[in-house]
Amino acid sequence: MTTSHLDALVDALRKLPGVGVKSAQRMAFHLLQHDRAGAQQLARALDEAVRGVRHCARCHTFTDQALCAICSDTHRDARQLCVVETPADQAALERTGSYRGYYYVLMGRISPLDGIGASALGAAGLMARATEGDVEEVILATSFTAEGEATAHVLSEGLKARGLKVTRLARGVPAGSELEYVDLSTIAHALVDRR
Amino acid sequence: MTTSHLDALVDALRKLPGVGVKSAQRMAFHLLQHDRAGAQQLARALDEAVRGVRHCARCHTFTDQALCAICSDTHRDARQLCVVETPADQAALERTGSYRGYYYVLMGRISPLDGIGASALGAAGLMARATEGDVEEVILATSFTAEGEATAHVLSEGLKARGLKVTRLARGVPAGSELEYVDLSTIAHALVDRR
Repeated sequence: MTTSHLDALVDALRKLPGVGVKSAQRMAFHLLQHDRAGAQQLARALDEAVRGVRHCARCHTFTDQALCAICSDTHRDARQLCVVETPADQAALERTGSYRGYYYVLMGRISPLDGIGASALGAAGLMARATEGDVEEVILATSFTAEGEATAHVLSEGLKARGLKVTRLARGVPAGSELEYVDLSTIAHALVDRR
Repeated sequence: MTTSHLDALVDALRKLPGVGVKSAQRMAFHLLQHDRAGAQQLARALDEAVRGVRHCARCHTFTDQALCAICSDTHRDARQLCVVETPADQAALERTGSYRGYYYVLMGRISPLDGIGASALGAAGLMARATEGDVEEVILATSFTAEGEATAHVLSEGLKARGLKVTRLARGVPAGSELEYVDLSTIAHALVDRR
């Protein structure tokens, strides 16, 4: 790899999460040898996304407009607000087809080791959104990891202090699984939360 | 993921080898949320590489110039020509510091299942390069996979027919390994090729 343009491309590809120097070389080789049209498409998409994608004024997710498609939809249930970590989590919930309220997208999670506390996460924005309008219940759908649980705990305190009903996604046995192969902590939670 | 710019970016990222829809979403989220400068740098690098990177007229590797840096270097040994599959393989050989001849980069390998035969691989270019000038020995440094071995076999026939000395990288026990943990086929080859 001795050409400067090629080196620059490999360096730039390493900015992608999970891409090391070997993967970056493989990607650069593939694009230049087999898919130059794809490389140009990617360059254009990056440019347009950087210039065009901003945060929704109400729910903070990525959008091309001032308000995202979900926040612009007046037919949803304004009494429910679901808090998720990322747009991908929001998309997963939407695909279930079983939630009709609005969302608030944190764009991250509390992570003390990375110096991200409640204020860096923009908890104030969530508090403002949750106390405006008709929100009655806030559903915390952050991940069931240590950091997601910490985020849910911190947000829940602030929301309860403002008189809101706060719920969390149920923990339990995943659909389609045999008990024998489910981890013990999950079974213990499912037992406590039995209904 | 409801914005069109974001969807276009996720689609474009999936053009990268080894990147599925989940990775592409993660990459798009990372770039837009945490590294917009990196996204712009990648867009620029892609653009410049697509416009600026071409094939070296002598060895067929990627270069910004008509001739690559190695082919332009007149202090190398013109009697040796080393045939590799990709620029990455060439870079690995260069890093050893133990080869001073020139290269020919195939930019692929013979792969009947993908419809890539000797002609699609540009074997004619190699034959022309190997018979011009002072080349005495052609070192086949294709991979030791089924496809790499087939490539070496086919090229070797053509080169020998043109009166050239053809050699292959030695197969044997990797440096630093204990015999107990080396696979049997490697040990068998090392035994045959003992010196």
